[in-house]
Amino acid sequence: MSKKERPIGFIDSGVGGLTVLKEALKQLPNENVIYLGDNARCPYGPRPKEQVLEFTWQMTHFLLSKQIKMLVIACNTATAVALDEIKQKLDIPVVGVILPGARAAVKATTTNKVGIIGTQGTIQSASYERALLEKVPSIEPFSLACPRFVPIVESNQARSSVAKKIVAETLQPMQRAKVDTLILGCTHYPLLKPLIQNVMGQSVHLIDSGVETIGEVSMLLDYFNIAHLPENKHPQREFYTTGSTVAFNQIARAWLEKSDISAKHIHLTGE
Amino acid sequence: MSKKERPIGFIDSGVGGLTVLKEALKQLPNENVIYLGDNARCPYGPRPKEQVLEFTWQMTHFLLSKQIKMLVIACNTATAVALDEIKQKLDIPVVGVILPGARAAVKATTTNKVGIIGTQGTIQSASYERALLEKVPSIEPFSLACPRFVPIVESNQARSSVAKKIVAETLQPMQRAKVDTLILGCTHYPLLKPLIQNVMGQSVHLIDSGVETIGEVSMLLDYFNIAHLPENKHPQREFYTTGSTVAFNQIARAWLEKSDISAKHIHLTGE
Repeated sequence: MSKKERPIGFIDSGVGGLTVLKEALKQLPNENVIYLGDNARCPYGPRPKEQVLEFTWQMTHFLLSKQIKMLVIACNTATAVALDEIKQKLDIPVVGVILPGARAAVKATTTNKVGIIGTQGTIQSASYERALLEKVPSIEPFSLACPRFVPIVESNQARSSVAKKIVAETLQPMQRAKVDTLILGCTHYPLLKPLIQNVMGQSVHLIDSGVETIGEVSMLLDYFNIAHLPENKHPQREFYTTGSTVAFNQIARAWLEKSDISAKHIHLTGE
Repeated sequence: MSKKERPIGFIDSGVGGLTVLKEALKQLPNENVIYLGDNARCPYGPRPKEQVLEFTWQMTHFLLSKQIKMLVIACNTATAVALDEIKQKLDIPVVGVILPGARAAVKATTTNKVGIIGTQGTIQSASYERALLEKVPSIEPFSLACPRFVPIVESNQARSSVAKKIVAETLQPMQRAKVDTLILGCTHYPLLKPLIQNVMGQSVHLIDSGVETIGEVSMLLDYFNIAHLPENKHPQREFYTTGSTVAFNQIARAWLEKSDISAKHIHLTGE
């Protein structure tokens, strides 16, 4: 298998990274892809850093055994903790979801008031704030942890009235902060996008890490000249989960609008 | 001077690349920048490929003597002809304006009908069509050369009634093509953006190469860890032109909204 034909690997704590994968299927339909969700140990947000690092390495090793040509850490918590170390140790390009989101916010804001929502782990790491301020020192970031969002999405309740209530309650401080741009700093959150947009108002620019991250993947494929050749008639799309395949398939099929998704169950070392 | 402090170099056939530079000042305010416009030999669009390649190398050598850490070919005609060769021969990252624009169009389109406008040289090279189809084979590109647009901008008439008439006349075939996304495939064209948007209709997504290219520059600065450290109190902003400094300064000051721009005149070998 030539380098160009090798798959791009995606890892996430659960189903959130599917929002990134969905963009890959749109923007890069010729690419072969492999997705691994660590649903059995989701959420990563409240876990200690050392554990998130360990789990992320386990997922990475699994995908390296599948001959991936690029790794996308499609999880903000894992990106905040593990990107630098993994990028340094691997000889393939490694992309996280934080810098693409921060860059897109810098591009979009006109008032320099930028909001960030994410898991407890991501917000505590202050990774977005740092990335924003390093780029544009005059930006005023406002961060808010939303620990109740991931469980809603993982339990497939993103369209329920409970979800609506929780989103409205949680975002109250963000509404008061008068941001013009809001980074959805967790790959699960685009599944709640209509609810979030509704609470924040139509004029607030929502930044979807997935869309931006695939822009970066696309760029790196071109830059390193490893994009798949056009017209891949039967692109490989493999899905793995450490959790229930039934639950994973249900969300993945609905979100990706593909009825033929059939994830395989795997165990990771130490899981 | 450490690598991070070295400037980013921008080259263009004239003032069009200032639309790219403007985005750099917004998205990357800490970076030192040097701009060179070859106004004396503008436009590049109708020139033979060999000549465009020669002129682009001359500009590149001038900026290399200024210790740039990255080169942005902020001109579509020059990118189409010279990017591959220059990128291969230089040991600093080199970025063109075509792939970022194509990628952004792939991201934006929902109907897969994508229009491209550019100079004769850019359209004849079919660079955008190739880039689009390599990414997403189902895209239907529609290309249109607009040779009258650059002279309007270079003569500082972008807001005149003549400009309005020429834009409306030229874009008639594009209107009929019913595209949902239009790539402004020439860095001069964002100066005509309100007129173009008006003719095409508000629902058509206009892709500004400059905005997208700086997104790529920002990404590569991060990827190679060569972004300038935050809080550059006195960023270096140098401007050079092979043409009239008076005319250059007039357009640059208005477009960049900076009254202190004072370009230096230079001669390039063989000019």
